[in-house]
Amino acid sequence: MKSHAAPPLIVTMGDACGIGPEIIAMAWARAALGPAVVCGDVQVMRRALKATGLVRPVACLESPLDLADVPEGTLPVWQPAGLPAGTAELAWGRVSGVAGAAAARCIEAAVAEVMAGRAGALVTAPIHKEALAAAGVPYPGHTEMLQALAARHAGQAEPPPVRMMLANDELRVVLVTIHVSLRRAIELLDTPRILQTLRITHEAGRRFGIAHPRIAVAALNPHAGEGGLFGDEERTIIAPAIEAACAEGIAASGPHAPDTVFMRARNAQGHPGEFDFVVAMTHDHGLIPVKYLGVEQGVNVTLGLPFVRTSPDHGTAFDLAGTGRADPASLIAAARMARRLANA
Amino acid sequence: MKSHAAPPLIVTMGDACGIGPEIIAMAWARAALGPAVVCGDVQVMRRALKATGLVRPVACLESPLDLADVPEGTLPVWQPAGLPAGTAELAWGRVSGVAGAAAARCIEAAVAEVMAGRAGALVTAPIHKEALAAAGVPYPGHTEMLQALAARHAGQAEPPPVRMMLANDELRVVLVTIHVSLRRAIELLDTPRILQTLRITHEAGRRFGIAHPRIAVAALNPHAGEGGLFGDEERTIIAPAIEAACAEGIAASGPHAPDTVFMRARNAQGHPGEFDFVVAMTHDHGLIPVKYLGVEQGVNVTLGLPFVRTSPDHGTAFDLAGTGRADPASLIAAARMARRLANA
Repeated sequence: MKSHAAPPLIVTMGDACGIGPEIIAMAWARAALGPAVVCGDVQVMRRALKATGLVRPVACLESPLDLADVPEGTLPVWQPAGLPAGTAELAWGRVSGVAGAAAARCIEAAVAEVMAGRAGALVTAPIHKEALAAAGVPYPGHTEMLQALAARHAGQAEPPPVRMMLANDELRVVLVTIHVSLRRAIELLDTPRILQTLRITHEAGRRFGIAHPRIAVAALNPHAGEGGLFGDEERTIIAPAIEAACAEGIAASGPHAPDTVFMRARNAQGHPGEFDFVVAMTHDHGLIPVKYLGVEQGVNVTLGLPFVRTSPDHGTAFDLAGTGRADPASLIAAARMARRLANA
Repeated sequence: MKSHAAPPLIVTMGDACGIGPEIIAMAWARAALGPAVVCGDVQVMRRALKATGLVRPVACLESPLDLADVPEGTLPVWQPAGLPAGTAELAWGRVSGVAGAAAARCIEAAVAEVMAGRAGALVTAPIHKEALAAAGVPYPGHTEMLQALAARHAGQAEPPPVRMMLANDELRVVLVTIHVSLRRAIELLDTPRILQTLRITHEAGRRFGIAHPRIAVAALNPHAGEGGLFGDEERTIIAPAIEAACAEGIAASGPHAPDTVFMRARNAQGHPGEFDFVVAMTHDHGLIPVKYLGVEQGVNVTLGLPFVRTSPDHGTAFDLAGTGRADPASLIAAARMARRLANA
């Protein structure tokens, strides 16, 4: 039986003091994750079930591939070796190095399972950057850690270039720059970085099953620079990247005025989008439109890794942790997106 | 009769070679402007009626106040003295100094009518910046010209500080910086400029009939600077302006993360907005969300003038001019907004 089914998703529990374990439990209880195994601490997941008012048993798996043997109504948890003790006794909503270490170990183990083909795609629940730092983990967040793990598994010295995509049902946005000041983002922009973003986006589009992904490039400046009057990055940096991409057969267009390109790309009922992706130069040019209609359905996808990885578009929400009131909608959307990408 | 009615709106025809005259004719024919007089060239407006397939007579008014005498089904046009000859013979969709001079003269005359109380508010159809320049008009656009005219009428040497607001049914956004490069916008930001924006926004809110306008200030940097990690403008420039505004009794809050503040302010069915206005640091942070759901309903309001002025949120659309296919929706929304502001 096992060998016939597609490998399940693997869902890391995230920071044990945040809402990760709870939203996983809630999403699973609604049968909204699809075939999926939780990579986490069994006691932490038991506590999460309790916090959400769910009286359900937990199955402790030896391998994600054992999912088929788990009886219905039992939460399937694969607990990797090497987890610290006492994580389930930590206070909710507090930064803890123990929780940081546990979260990091789960990510590491889950990546190994995906790279070995025993899981089909990775969905990560939120971690806390300070907890990670308190544990001495040498990566500031998920992305850098996943890049390093991918390089290690592939035996490469350099981490693969990745880009953050935020997507909902209407819009897919890929960011050229992310977590830096706006000043620094402008400094970081250059033609190779934009061209690389276009290549990564094109590949992702093909993975989505789109033969010729239509990629709109949003400009940096108002009115796309108004012919150089409001800035020259469009002419000197962005247009050359688009030209080079087109020469490689990538269907890139622009630079388009930032204030209307997202509206044009928006794919809604009665409003077919003109583009499959928008590449945005800055964090907020890209995320303002994705989040405008609500953050619940937003999914974060890391493009450029050798495996599929998605995550909900929110953090650990320490203020809600343990209350059972967090909303699993974004995690559910992340699982749906991961399945779609892994099967394409 | 005349003296009892509120003064009508005055609608400038804009560039005679663009879509301005046509969308005015269409909006008027749909009875969607409310009591309004066109300030324009009678022949240009006759040509516009023809272009849109409307067979209607034109009434030539001596003063906007004569609107009450105009028979139903007759387009009321007040043609100011000093218009250049031959404007109605110009080719559609071409830059023309004659059209620029006519557009400028109409704006000047319309402002005098509003300042004299013979019109209740000003709605401006789109002009073309190159046509204005070709006519030797010493202002790059509407806003600067209106500031200068307001100062002249008030006998002041300095033009009044103004801010651009873009509004639709869901969102009202006021911009701290507008038509400059993103680099330059960051350089232009300082505490006095932001504080002045908050004061102007507060006054506008009261004009809207809101006793205590809730003003959200959007940050400049991702995550509102993440405690200084992604830029320090929030701490050094924006927060002090918010504090000073609050000390003056203005209900300003923030700086809020740009990627979620517009979603929070969005006022839609089943989703009451948390704020009445969002103040945005840059052109595209503010305009991306206003335009995301479609530009048709967007209205441009100039805040800070001694009279009400609104305009549609689009340009002269030279490619559509004369075809009768332009959409008057934004002009209609601009007239509705002007009436609302003038009567408040």
